[in-house]
Amino acid sequence: MERNTSSKSDLPPGFRFHPTDEELIMFYLKNQAKSKPCPVSIIPEVDIYKFDPWQLPDKAEFGENEWYFFSPRDRKYPNGVRPNRATVSGYWKATGTDKAIHSGSKYVGVKKALVFYNGRPPKGVKTNWIMHEYRLSDSHKQIKKHSGSMRLDDWVLCRIYKKKNSAEKILDHKVEESNTQIDRGLKMLRSYSLETYLTITVPSQGIFK
Amino acid sequence: MERNTSSKSDLPPGFRFHPTDEELIMFYLKNQAKSKPCPVSIIPEVDIYKFDPWQLPDKAEFGENEWYFFSPRDRKYPNGVRPNRATVSGYWKATGTDKAIHSGSKYVGVKKALVFYNGRPPKGVKTNWIMHEYRLSDSHKQIKKHSGSMRLDDWVLCRIYKKKNSAEKILDHKVEESNTQIDRGLKMLRSYSLETYLTITVPSQGIFK
Repeated sequence: MERNTSSKSDLPPGFRFHPTDEELIMFYLKNQAKSKPCPVSIIPEVDIYKFDPWQLPDKAEFGENEWYFFSPRDRKYPNGVRPNRATVSGYWKATGTDKAIHSGSKYVGVKKALVFYNGRPPKGVKTNWIMHEYRLSDSHKQIKKHSGSMRLDDWVLCRIYKKKNSAEKILDHKVEESNTQIDRGLKMLRSYSLETYLTITVPSQGIFK
Repeated sequence: MERNTSSKSDLPPGFRFHPTDEELIMFYLKNQAKSKPCPVSIIPEVDIYKFDPWQLPDKAEFGENEWYFFSPRDRKYPNGVRPNRATVSGYWKATGTDKAIHSGSKYVGVKKALVFYNGRPPKGVKTNWIMHEYRLSDSHKQIKKHSGSMRLDDWVLCRIYKKKNSAEKILDHKVEESNTQIDRGLKMLRSYSLETYLTITVPSQGIFK
């Protein structure tokens, strides 16, 4: 088996960056906001809105099926507080409700899920590209004035991945099922050959009598 | 935030042992079967049938919510090929269909799921303790004769975990929901205070007019 070469890490087989929401906020995003180094430098600074989601895996230093970035957010309107979520070919749109992230009983940040749409609203076409955007709670933010700037706030941390569609899931399942069927067939064939062998060569001791 | 102390590893935050089925077979179980060292010595040799599942986390060197072991399997009957799945207080019973594990197109092993029952069959009471048992395909096994021995075969690799029951899941969800409600309440309170403040102190510039 070849190991995944898209990951540049030297982790032993089976080890992965699978952080909890709390770990992402407390050990990575908080450090980034304070300009302190992260425990491991695996999350690059990329303005993800300058790219379409399928271009992002190449911008990541690390990751198999999901990719992490620290991204700035720009304002949609000069005096507004809404972020600009448009990219070259489409836009990110929030889905579901935001999730408050706690460390112990302390509220430390928010996780927002977004879906990428190709085209321009309201005619965008939904894709399977998903973003989880983590931002710090206000009390954890380094308050900075960006007067006259389109920059909305400090860094956010984004996890980008492509959800499998139901057709791919069904295909995966079918492949797995076929493999199981093939294995069963081979097993039957082997036990049949053994039975034939035993009946022909050692009939008196035949196990299957 | 305190880091989980049950894990003795020195991994940076967010890194975990989350192996694929293929990695468990190809990098860990195959090495164990050949008496070769694993990439990392994190899977201890424990005869898991000598313990009840809730005793096993303490026997593992590593793991937060799931624990890995190399275990021998004993025969149920002296001349049979069925493994003895009884423990002190109960027994493990297979559930679902076995899954063939492939490395590329090569069939390399089998994954079997089992559930722990308290008591003795047929009166055992199902628990939430789950085992995934990985064994090598016959072609990967080191064929050894254990004549006169109750030992059935070579090592198997077991992942043990406790499934959350639906009540726990609902509780988790409720806590999360309550936290979100509290956050929303605080947010409303803060925006209300700001509005009051603006109305009282700077009525002519009141944003909310």
